[in-house]
Amino acid sequence: MGTYKRAKPFTIDVPQLARKIREGDRGALAKGITLLESVSPTHRPHGEALLRELLPYSGGAKRIGITGVPGAGKSTFLEAFGLRLAEKDHRVAVLAVDPTSTRSGGSILGDKTRMELLAHHPNAFIRPSPTGGTLGGVQRRTREVTLLCEAAGFDVIFVETVGVGQSEVVARDLVDVFLYFVLTGAGDELQGMKKGIMELADVLIVHKADGENESKAARSKHAFERIVHDIQPVTEGWPPRVMTLSSQTGMGMEELEQTIDEFFTVTKESGVHEQVRKEQQRHWFHQALIQRLHDWLNEDAQLRELQTSMQVDVLKKEKTVPEAVDTLFQAFLQQVHTQIDKR
Amino acid sequence: MGTYKRAKPFTIDVPQLARKIREGDRGALAKGITLLESVSPTHRPHGEALLRELLPYSGGAKRIGITGVPGAGKSTFLEAFGLRLAEKDHRVAVLAVDPTSTRSGGSILGDKTRMELLAHHPNAFIRPSPTGGTLGGVQRRTREVTLLCEAAGFDVIFVETVGVGQSEVVARDLVDVFLYFVLTGAGDELQGMKKGIMELADVLIVHKADGENESKAARSKHAFERIVHDIQPVTEGWPPRVMTLSSQTGMGMEELEQTIDEFFTVTKESGVHEQVRKEQQRHWFHQALIQRLHDWLNEDAQLRELQTSMQVDVLKKEKTVPEAVDTLFQAFLQQVHTQIDKR
Repeated sequence: MGTYKRAKPFTIDVPQLARKIREGDRGALAKGITLLESVSPTHRPHGEALLRELLPYSGGAKRIGITGVPGAGKSTFLEAFGLRLAEKDHRVAVLAVDPTSTRSGGSILGDKTRMELLAHHPNAFIRPSPTGGTLGGVQRRTREVTLLCEAAGFDVIFVETVGVGQSEVVARDLVDVFLYFVLTGAGDELQGMKKGIMELADVLIVHKADGENESKAARSKHAFERIVHDIQPVTEGWPPRVMTLSSQTGMGMEELEQTIDEFFTVTKESGVHEQVRKEQQRHWFHQALIQRLHDWLNEDAQLRELQTSMQVDVLKKEKTVPEAVDTLFQAFLQQVHTQIDKR
Repeated sequence: MGTYKRAKPFTIDVPQLARKIREGDRGALAKGITLLESVSPTHRPHGEALLRELLPYSGGAKRIGITGVPGAGKSTFLEAFGLRLAEKDHRVAVLAVDPTSTRSGGSILGDKTRMELLAHHPNAFIRPSPTGGTLGGVQRRTREVTLLCEAAGFDVIFVETVGVGQSEVVARDLVDVFLYFVLTGAGDELQGMKKGIMELADVLIVHKADGENESKAARSKHAFERIVHDIQPVTEGWPPRVMTLSSQTGMGMEELEQTIDEFFTVTKESGVHEQVRKEQQRHWFHQALIQRLHDWLNEDAQLRELQTSMQVDVLKKEKTVPEAVDTLFQAFLQQVHTQIDKR
């Protein structure tokens, strides 16, 4: 006869973990994030309780979005600019949004390698994108991790978009100010128009403005200035700025820091900062509600199957959309009824 | 003692109405549309049944979206181009998407006045935007009206966006090909960049290219061509075209007609046409499902109140978003349970 070990029930002292996170314990922060990122139903309630504990201490950081064309040098910039801030006693966290990521544990090493100096600075914390899941899921988790980092005392949080397409839209909804990195070069003046991402930017940065690139960068800056002139500002009362920058020589770094400070001064005075954050929270609430319905529909095999067959019927013109939805919704209600009866 | 009349129960012979619509009875078509646009719970099942009857006969039209900056002359164009097609024995319907509309019955007159000749043509049918409701609601109804018009034998359906901002995105999801109207003039070359609407266009039309405007229009055309060159085509395999057009002189009308024909030839051969329509239906299904949840949450006064108070708690940091959603969803499930028990 064999013996077997009963799985140890998962227990965690949430108030203690919360306290340690607030005290700046990095191991505790990492543990808390892992809890929030976990898809295990055992972990989830603990993650939510932790969020609850730390909520009153969140909200204090400058949340800065970083996006840009591939090869625009976002990591090099984050390393240089992040170190600059960390040296000035800012506490800097770097989070990534990358829905295409299939990277596992090794990704941490990857991210830490590409920002090696920053990764080892006592004032900095680098966290790679949670792996797998939908873009909505990645967004939710990044949002929650932001709150945790704020409670842990980080006052500057970079949210870097590594993915393509929709991930910029998702990242925009997580931050206060959005920096868009472009490169100089023939025809590149309009590269930013793709997908309308340029319209989400508060600051457009012509990067790698050094060496023989410097004069080209200045020309690109003027071209972009003409373009953004006609764009409706994404942040009310802040017409987008265009800047040249070099992470190699440090040119433009001081100006960028001042520009970001100015952004927060202007938007806080006008009330736009508060207003945008409220809007983001409303949006989050709405999304979370829809997610709940989806979860319910997809957790049950029967409902999942019905969903597929209804979609097929619609495509085959055998059912109208209202009919198909009605059938699915009635099955959903019946399912709810049965489940609650069982409780 | 007074007497009172009992309200006559609403009855309608749906199969007969459907038959009349298919026979081209315009009164029946108008009645059917009114049924679909009605928000009355008494009408809704009849509207859905009608849709069911006519579904097999839908899908045959070219669905053409029309949008553009204010003053770009969309009505003038629709009158001229619509008449041109109607004269060639096409059957032309013009629908409007305008979520900001608070126009009541008078709007029909308004729309018919601005396209007077077309409105009186036997081959044409003009229907103003349904009034009120959310953008999602307007979209749903416009989609259903499109199906009805197709079953009634209309082979060209224009969906005109009268509103601003998001309504273009909503209209794009209703049509096969999207025409974007711009004007010539200083700095206007980039007017289209606003809100990224230009990126939704398959054909960009520099309108009012007549008289002293003609050479300016040609220059604008070149400027736009450089811009669209860098835009990823919204329709796979169809790089956006730029054309100049005059609804006064008729210049460009023939070319536009050929371009639209070419668009359909190309996208039907490549399978993109079918693929886009399928994607639109999937999207519709998804939206309808979410709408159902919303309806349920908002029809009940208690749930509605709870929703508001949860949002306030989130904004006051008294509840996390997951907590608030959980509370609301549990109340929703309990409500479903109680309602079904009552049945």
